[in-house]
Amino acid sequence: MERPNRITATVVVASLTVLSAQGQVRDTVQAATTPTIAEVLEATTPDEWEALDPENTVYFDFEDGRFVVRLAPMFAPRHVANIKALVRAGYFDGGAVVRSQENYVAQWSIRGLDEGETLPAGVATSLPAEFEVPVSGATFVPVPDGDLYAPEAGFTGGFPVGRDDTTGMMWMAHCYGAVGVGRGNDPGSGNGSSLYAVNGHSPRHLDRNLTMVGQVVSGMEHLSTLARGTGRLGFYENDNERSVFVSVRLASDLPAQERVHLETLRTDSRSFRRLMLAARSRIEGFFLHPTDRIELCNVRRPVREQMP
Amino acid sequence: MERPNRITATVVVASLTVLSAQGQVRDTVQAATTPTIAEVLEATTPDEWEALDPENTVYFDFEDGRFVVRLAPMFAPRHVANIKALVRAGYFDGGAVVRSQENYVAQWSIRGLDEGETLPAGVATSLPAEFEVPVSGATFVPVPDGDLYAPEAGFTGGFPVGRDDTTGMMWMAHCYGAVGVGRGNDPGSGNGSSLYAVNGHSPRHLDRNLTMVGQVVSGMEHLSTLARGTGRLGFYENDNERSVFVSVRLASDLPAQERVHLETLRTDSRSFRRLMLAARSRIEGFFLHPTDRIELCNVRRPVREQMP
Repeated sequence: MERPNRITATVVVASLTVLSAQGQVRDTVQAATTPTIAEVLEATTPDEWEALDPENTVYFDFEDGRFVVRLAPMFAPRHVANIKALVRAGYFDGGAVVRSQENYVAQWSIRGLDEGETLPAGVATSLPAEFEVPVSGATFVPVPDGDLYAPEAGFTGGFPVGRDDTTGMMWMAHCYGAVGVGRGNDPGSGNGSSLYAVNGHSPRHLDRNLTMVGQVVSGMEHLSTLARGTGRLGFYENDNERSVFVSVRLASDLPAQERVHLETLRTDSRSFRRLMLAARSRIEGFFLHPTDRIELCNVRRPVREQMP
Repeated sequence: MERPNRITATVVVASLTVLSAQGQVRDTVQAATTPTIAEVLEATTPDEWEALDPENTVYFDFEDGRFVVRLAPMFAPRHVANIKALVRAGYFDGGAVVRSQENYVAQWSIRGLDEGETLPAGVATSLPAEFEVPVSGATFVPVPDGDLYAPEAGFTGGFPVGRDDTTGMMWMAHCYGAVGVGRGNDPGSGNGSSLYAVNGHSPRHLDRNLTMVGQVVSGMEHLSTLARGTGRLGFYENDNERSVFVSVRLASDLPAQERVHLETLRTDSRSFRRLMLAARSRIEGFFLHPTDRIELCNVRRPVREQMP
């Protein structure tokens, strides 16, 4: 299925000479210089992968499936702390998906509070918005073709981000699987007790308008395949349509043997950069017209079970 | 929830004067010049909507749901003709979804052929690729912010397209819900008996590498929520996991009273242009930071049941 990778560096140089004169030769050059996605993944080294931080990994368990969220304290420290407090106090147990809107988001919430019940001490009922944060010293790995929505785009802390050097701010992008905080019209009305994940074409117009707290890194299909709600905005009209969480836990609160040991390819690794280029200029035999372009949300960061 | 639309044209002009001096005033100007999405939709006139052409509308019926595909003969005349011949000969009845891959595509095929059975006369078993077509005289409505994947992007024939004026060619873009023709590695190996629809973030790297034949205009949730297949590329490993079509019909082959009378907003209408601008610069109270940008696949063409 894939082209043999026999063309030598010598041929590449030769082809490059022809390139400027004749556009058609480009494909030959690409075939020699760009690997396939499979080749990149096979060639990764163990140090290019990093385990998920158990302190910032949450398992959301339905009766029949689990999705895993990697939290992003770098982008929303107060909301992430509040979510962790809600998880640890057991408020997401018995919570449920309350909304599933086609080509937009699935949204879930903590369990309903009993009459007169309040959230425990230390859990905020609302928090100031954390739509964007100052660009920090953390590595920024830009995507190669820029972005339509942000002055700059790429990866920071392993998350897809937009940034603006004129304001010195950065923010997580609403790519597929991105997790944000539900809120009312008041930007400071959310607290992380209601979260959503993008289940369709990335709604980038939401960027910088909602507090982003992480990304679904595994089991997204348990959210994306939920029946769509028939109410306004895809809310379920009847409680019995909701998928209920039997258990929601921070990985670090479980014994090591009960954790799922996931690791992701470091976005500051050589292989990640090669992966972007391989996805950008597909040389696999199936592709006749590689786009030679890749957009932020089409860059997929690999996740796998940790090698023993 | 939405801002009152009371600001007069006079105020707009006044505000514009201030705009150049002080960036913050922009929001006021936007509020006056840009409508909300709801306002645009309320203000459409009947002549801005067009009924789906029954000759190019296919109903795919599962036991418990229907999705509707609007075919695009302008972009793939031979494949569309072949699909219509297969539908009319009943080959999609008893066909099924064979693949559901997370954040990529759902794919479906005609029923299995009996041993020795061939496709009927007039139905091609393979067709030359129709990846792109010459730019025609048909109206092209560009998106306002360009495109990352194509030199130009917008709408032609009501479909999202990329185009390249240097080659004089245009092609349908792989936006959410776009329908293409499955094929093998040979670009001429497809015939429309296996089709797919995009169910995740638009995989634009497929543009110009597959023959696009239309778009799901209604009922996409019946494809997007199907359980993901556990085989390679999301193929189902067991036949009993497949969702089977009980009936697949061209609208024009049904009596008028059995059709679903859908209509879509003409992309060459004034309201469609206003809709793009309203989606680009959201003035609804929820939005603090309108992106003032919109990407091709984030432009949603409205579809509704025809007004009686």
